Amino acid sequence: MASLIPLTAPDDPRIDAYRVIKERDLVGRGGRFIVEGRTVLDVALSPRNRFTLESLLLAESRIEALAPLLAQAPADLPVYTASQAILDGITGFHIHRGLLGIGLRGAEPSMAELIASLPEEALVVVPLGITNHDNVGGIMRNAAAFGADAALFDFASCDPLYRKAIRVSVGGSLMVPFAREGSAEAILDRLAASGFTLIALSPSGASELSTLARPPRAALLLGAEGPGLAPHILARTLTTRIAMAGNFDSLNVATTSGIALHAMRRTQITPA
Amino acid sequence: MASLIPLTAPDDPRIDAYRVIKERDLVGRGGRFIVEGRTVLDVALSPRNRFTLESLLLAESRIEALAPLLAQAPADLPVYTASQAILDGITGFHIHRGLLGIGLRGAEPSMAELIASLPEEALVVVPLGITNHDNVGGIMRNAAAFGADAALFDFASCDPLYRKAIRVSVGGSLMVPFAREGSAEAILDRLAASGFTLIALSPSGASELSTLARPPRAALLLGAEGPGLAPHILARTLTTRIAMAGNFDSLNVATTSGIALHAMRRTQITPA
Repeated sequence: MASLIPLTAPDDPRIDAYRVIKERDLVGRGGRFIVEGRTVLDVALSPRNRFTLESLLLAESRIEALAPLLAQAPADLPVYTASQAILDGITGFHIHRGLLGIGLRGAEPSMAELIASLPEEALVVVPLGITNHDNVGGIMRNAAAFGADAALFDFASCDPLYRKAIRVSVGGSLMVPFAREGSAEAILDRLAASGFTLIALSPSGASELSTLARPPRAALLLGAEGPGLAPHILARTLTTRIAMAGNFDSLNVATTSGIALHAMRRTQITPA
Repeated sequence: MASLIPLTAPDDPRIDAYRVIKERDLVGRGGRFIVEGRTVLDVALSPRNRFTLESLLLAESRIEALAPLLAQAPADLPVYTASQAILDGITGFHIHRGLLGIGLRGAEPSMAELIASLPEEALVVVPLGITNHDNVGGIMRNAAAFGADAALFDFASCDPLYRKAIRVSVGGSLMVPFAREGSAEAILDRLAASGFTLIALSPSGASELSTLARPPRAALLLGAEGPGLAPHILARTLTTRIAMAGNFDSLNVATTSGIALHAMRRTQITPA
């Protein structure tokens, strides 16, 4: 277990990374990201986390309740503790459930490297133009729950290491390998060249999802709610639909990812 | 099409219902509820809406863009229009996309009446202890999308006519018949007495969801994230699980409802 380091002043330089939270708040840039809440920290402190934690910061009042969780922390991880008054001075806003951590992005694989690293049989999720942090988090949660091999975001989508996306993912953002780079077209070109069948969910899809044969390498494309995937994207994909009531053809995109990943994981792989 | 009624002062008594929005904000009590946003209003102004609208209020700047939507409004529906300055004076906060409406709850069916009204073959969703407005809204959206016959909430769950629940439901809250009353036990007693098979999603479920035979009358029970359904509830149900990756057994409850409703709607009914 990591040893606790009590802080005596909010301007302690060892916690500079936390002091600037407000400025970067939702942003995963700058080589660091923010993890918060017990469930996410449970993932972050387990071997499931692909990233390295730099430090933890918690309210003194939470030490006892969080002891089982802290027992998982590596011995060399700094765990700063502070009174609520000092915490308020550091961050300027309330810490979610008295527990916050800073993670390091480290060297991230390029899209090409990530695709090249995928196994022979692979299921990847491809969110395109998804700018809502809740939806990106929800997609990462489902990708983790159904064991997707990777998530490939176009650059128009938001970063799965945004603060809220990590929280909504319940730690899935830390587990599923991802890249976020380039245009939708560039990603689809790469996937097609690597033998992936491009599958798009669309209300006008050619077959119902539950009857879809699963190819050995499947890429599940998801578009933004409202506009959906652009016609020129749909034109190069195998389209599939989720059967719905005739008078309300509307699903949340994260829910759609859950339904589609569940269906595909339950389907035997059929050689193309 | 309804005729537009321009307002010249924020204290016009005809829009008293909007003036108190802040106090009731998220609350569907008091016989009224708030609808907002184009997509929800599209449902609210269609025959899919089970409720009656009392009035609409919109920003002058939005009249032209919303003309196709307003064309659906009944001729006797008051549609108040105002400048942004007057709107700000009325509500004290920004109106979502310049469009707000007040709906009337009217006479709501009791739980017993709603259950008695269900068809011979029926699929109902039963959220128990779901207090998160996003999740209740998400469940109502999925219930509408997959044509559930009713949603039966225990009193510990939040009201599907809360402002945010309606918004997240994209109008599903206005479509799917629901009741919210009493304890989980009381609801399950009623459903069992009415020939419903009680089906609970649980990580330790006896069968995987996609292999579950669908009874003619099926009630799909959903518990709160984290605690899930209580053991004494699970003990009286047919349990089913959603197969997930071994190291991350975590789904959002609204996503769970989508996966389960999709699976059950795709399954032939098997006489019990």
